[in-house]
Amino acid sequence: MSIRKRKINPEDDLGFGPQPVIKNQPLVNKNGTPNVKRIGLPFFNTANNYHTLITMSWRRFWVLVLSAYLIVNILFAFIYVSIGTGSLDGSSATTGLHHFMDAFFFSAQTISTVGYGHISPRGMMSNSVAAIESMLGLLAFALATGLLYGRFSRPSAQIIYSKNILVAPYPETGKGIMFRLANLRRNILIDLEIEIIFSFNETVEGKTIRRFYPLELERRKVSLLTMNWTIVHPLDDNSPLKEMTKEDLENSEAGFAVLLKAFDDTFLQTIHSRTWYQYKDIVWGAKFKPVFNRDEEGRIVLDLSKISDHEVLGG
Amino acid sequence: MSIRKRKINPEDDLGFGPQPVIKNQPLVNKNGTPNVKRIGLPFFNTANNYHTLITMSWRRFWVLVLSAYLIVNILFAFIYVSIGTGSLDGSSATTGLHHFMDAFFFSAQTISTVGYGHISPRGMMSNSVAAIESMLGLLAFALATGLLYGRFSRPSAQIIYSKNILVAPYPETGKGIMFRLANLRRNILIDLEIEIIFSFNETVEGKTIRRFYPLELERRKVSLLTMNWTIVHPLDDNSPLKEMTKEDLENSEAGFAVLLKAFDDTFLQTIHSRTWYQYKDIVWGAKFKPVFNRDEEGRIVLDLSKISDHEVLGG
Amino acid sequence: MSIRKRKINPEDDLGFGPQPVIKNQPLVNKNGTPNVKRIGLPFFNTANNYHTLITMSWRRFWVLVLSAYLIVNILFAFIYVSIGTGSLDGSSATTGLHHFMDAFFFSAQTISTVGYGHISPRGMMSNSVAAIESMLGLLAFALATGLLYGRFSRPSAQIIYSKNILVAPYPETGKGIMFRLANLRRNILIDLEIEIIFSFNETVEGKTIRRFYPLELERRKVSLLTMNWTIVHPLDDNSPLKEMTKEDLENSEAGFAVLLKAFDDTFLQTIHSRTWYQYKDIVWGAKFKPVFNRDEEGRIVLDLSKISDHEVLGG
Amino acid sequence: MSIRKRKINPEDDLGFGPQPVIKNQPLVNKNGTPNVKRIGLPFFNTANNYHTLITMSWRRFWVLVLSAYLIVNILFAFIYVSIGTGSLDGSSATTGLHHFMDAFFFSAQTISTVGYGHISPRGMMSNSVAAIESMLGLLAFALATGLLYGRFSRPSAQIIYSKNILVAPYPETGKGIMFRLANLRRNILIDLEIEIIFSFNETVEGKTIRRFYPLELERRKVSLLTMNWTIVHPLDDNSPLKEMTKEDLENSEAGFAVLLKAFDDTFLQTIHSRTWYQYKDIVWGAKFKPVFNRDEEGRIVLDLSKISDHEVLGG
Repeated sequence: MSIRKRKINPEDDLGFGPQPVIKNQPLVNKNGTPNVKRIGLPFFNTANNYHTLITMSWRRFWVLVLSAYLIVNILFAFIYVSIGTGSLDGSSATTGLHHFMDAFFFSAQTISTVGYGHISPRGMMSNSVAAIESMLGLLAFALATGLLYGRFSRPSAQIIYSKNILVAPYPETGKGIMFRLANLRRNILIDLEIEIIFSFNETVEGKTIRRFYPLELERRKVSLLTMNWTIVHPLDDNSPLKEMTKEDLENSEAGFAVLLKAFDDTFLQTIHSRTWYQYKDIVWGAKFKPVFNRDEEGRIVLDLSKISDHEVLGG
Repeated sequence: MSIRKRKINPEDDLGFGPQPVIKNQPLVNKNGTPNVKRIGLPFFNTANNYHTLITMSWRRFWVLVLSAYLIVNILFAFIYVSIGTGSLDGSSATTGLHHFMDAFFFSAQTISTVGYGHISPRGMMSNSVAAIESMLGLLAFALATGLLYGRFSRPSAQIIYSKNILVAPYPETGKGIMFRLANLRRNILIDLEIEIIFSFNETVEGKTIRRFYPLELERRKVSLLTMNWTIVHPLDDNSPLKEMTKEDLENSEAGFAVLLKAFDDTFLQTIHSRTWYQYKDIVWGAKFKPVFNRDEEGRIVLDLSKISDHEVLGG
Repeated sequence: MSIRKRKINPEDDLGFGPQPVIKNQPLVNKNGTPNVKRIGLPFFNTANNYHTLITMSWRRFWVLVLSAYLIVNILFAFIYVSIGTGSLDGSSATTGLHHFMDAFFFSAQTISTVGYGHISPRGMMSNSVAAIESMLGLLAFALATGLLYGRFSRPSAQIIYSKNILVAPYPETGKGIMFRLANLRRNILIDLEIEIIFSFNETVEGKTIRRFYPLELERRKVSLLTMNWTIVHPLDDNSPLKEMTKEDLENSEAGFAVLLKAFDDTFLQTIHSRTWYQYKDIVWGAKFKPVFNRDEEGRIVLDLSKISDHEVLGG
Repeated sequence: MSIRKRKINPEDDLGFGPQPVIKNQPLVNKNGTPNVKRIGLPFFNTANNYHTLITMSWRRFWVLVLSAYLIVNILFAFIYVSIGTGSLDGSSATTGLHHFMDAFFFSAQTISTVGYGHISPRGMMSNSVAAIESMLGLLAFALATGLLYGRFSRPSAQIIYSKNILVAPYPETGKGIMFRLANLRRNILIDLEIEIIFSFNETVEGKTIRRFYPLELERRKVSLLTMNWTIVHPLDDNSPLKEMTKEDLENSEAGFAVLLKAFDDTFLQTIHSRTWYQYKDIVWGAKFKPVFNRDEEGRIVLDLSKISDHEVLGG
């Protein structure tokens, strides 16, 4: 395996350090999160509460909100029941269960501030509990609705990458390594910058270390992501990949980290997107099919469903 | 047509690539969005929900909110009716329609958490439905109000550009290409930077490609956009436009992309504004009329309605 | 008047252009807004609504909110009254005024979603109006509360500048022009950068134009604004102010624009602050008094009330 | 004490100026705030209200919210009572205290917009007060809930630093000064940059001044903070620490300011973290223990509880 000599810059390692990769583990997951497990966090770690609630799945979020609503109402129902039979005006309950249900629904009406009033608190105790419950209800719902809206409006990149990375014909150097991306959102992305880090295991003096090479690109920047963008690394003499074979890549647990930065011109925020191509994602000798055509007025029509389409070249 | 030789920098193409423009299509619309149609998005694409709801017209937004309110109440009305006649206390309905209307208005009072209470839920079933409805109502209204406020407060540039781009007299080079802009908002804009990309079709060895030239400007930056700003590209020997005629520009589907970047000092965000001048927007041999004068205390008075005013020069 | 020769850089003019200042008008107001009057805005200009509502005085904001609440309730009261006598259940009104007041308070209870229920809508029409009113009430209050919170939480620099700019003794050059600033907020400001533009009228070949010189500073950056910061322009041979007298400054309508940029480490936003010293604000031959001392533990104690304190030097 | 000659750059002083440190006072507290006391603020300084409410402890925040709720309800209860006995419909109060309690709970039901309606306002006066109370209640709760959510969602760095700074073996220079950090949050941090300023008292010509040296680092940047990051200052010939002893550091009140900057890729904001190592925090001749290992699939497992673990080296 013939890697060209090149001074190692420790700042290229993306923060992973020189440990070799074993057993086909990507360093970065497809969705851009680092493939690292974290333990040893403080047992009661509030630092991640907000992050957890914002990033959990919608399913889990709804289960959590509904459970909290149920549990809190059950709790307050017990309090109202424990105050005594006369605590709720308008309740015609005769059995214990019936009494509890009345207290439960009264609690729900209080916490959501609906307050129909056909059941209403009577006496000092239940009035005080209801006053506190309605106040906490307002604050709790504010948190829930804030989280709901925060989840809904969270700005995040929605970049689709072509499923494969191709070794394709390229005019000046004969061959190039390339993949494509496009914006799945209607948000306008501007001032895009991309970086590709090629990473692989190398055995130097009997010790296996992980190495990182930023790849030269035909083009690192785009002003506007109007269509798709094909990122090309020309396989010229400076490329560390020039003489690598399929087997070399597999044996060295090779992979490509893709780091994209852009400015979202709709929500005025800098966004970042990352992905990872493992050696298995490379298609040798193929080229991408066109992803756009023209409508009758001459306007460009971009078909996002074709972003991964390619054809394997014969010969 | 004599375009000066110049090394093509692929990063100047704004992300549009080398496809020629056909049939008088601007690359960027006047409002700054790219003139590209996008198809092939996943059928159930949630990535754009928020963007759609924030950027749709106010008319459509209100229709949507009112429809949703109506439909949800009709739905819940059916549920209350289906539970049975005795489900709503206080309803004196005798006919089916009357019953439905009572259920509908009860639902509206529940979902908005008004809860007058002259109609109230009776029994396990309708109480449970009402408890869930009031909770969902709070969350749904939180989304609606979040969107309403988000739409209202969304920071965005409101730059007005002069309607035309002029070929006007300019001291040092004889002529210059110029246009004007001003801030329509009272927000203070600082640290403005502008870029003009001249773009046209060129036929090289029988193949028509699109070319992009960033134009040299008299001044690229302004610290404060206090008044209007006249952007000037001097027509000197380095200009690719130096010897182009009106016909050259028309035949080559020429246009000018304007890219403006600024910091909004009221809302502390970087904003971007884009526009496009098509070859048809050029006025040959004209100059802008003054856009400001002094009041009696010597203070500058800027008249934004005159931003496009110019006079065609005789001779 | 002997101004040293220096190539004019049009980008130093802050965006004000070469018009001379007349009749003692500062270019920038003390609070940092440009001293320019803007007219000719479209009659129905929605672009500034949010900005106006966020930046208006608290007094005007509360008057607006209360008026809107009053007017909307009067409007809906008229609608309920016009529906007819039986439209409101629980109203025992016999006179027209009494009827109107009942309708008015019912409207207030509906729009704020309190909904006591002692008065409740009766019949199709008033029920429908109430359903719509409660929905619009929720949305309107969302806007009002959003604005209230937006006003309250708006990040903005609160820099206090010394009232005067001093011509004070300075070690290496004999004299220096200096002023002080400090942070009035408890927010931590980091990475501060400052720029001072000296601006004055100059008559060149009979034509008076405004000139702008960025002044050299002893120090342009501070990592943390922990205490006060004294900004010094040394009066050395490169200074355009070196040989200017009090009369020169007055005759040339001289002034100093101060541009400060910092990162607010509490709210994670870049903030900007501007101010202006007119020639009248200069104190010749004075020096600042110390603004901090030590407590018994050796800790620095900064006294913000002394930021402008200086003593005029004898001789 | 032999400090190498080096031109002093006043911009290295972090904004603390040349005053010497006395009596073992760190310049920056462990939590990153400057160790400076501020007095002389205007008595009624609204600039810090929001900052105070957002950054106060949760305990104080809840006490404040509950007290405000209690006080406002007591206030409105007095108003309702003062209007007269008949002001509240549904109140069967016969004693003054009972009357007051009814008014108090009615107020709570109004301000939280629950509005059961078993007690309701009667007459012009109490209806008007209730209408205003419900409106103010909505606005006040909006502020409270805004603050609650603002506190909960406030983006802030949660970096843990190793408790000590070690003088440890380092390949090329024999020894290095090092410490470790990791991200306590699950938020992904990218584009990290670090700076270490070494600061100490120095007596020059009989006058003690504070000096500041930015230290050279093995590595100043990391693309992704995936694991821990060990920051190393090699003790080579250029280091001002090269020949300093434990006593030198103590006598000169030495300390290290750590300034970290990163981009939070979950909430799309630039965050900053600062800490301070006092001379007492240095451990001479020790090295850090590993902080991660591999799970059975070869994935890296980071144990955050080991971030400060080190072993003192014998000999």
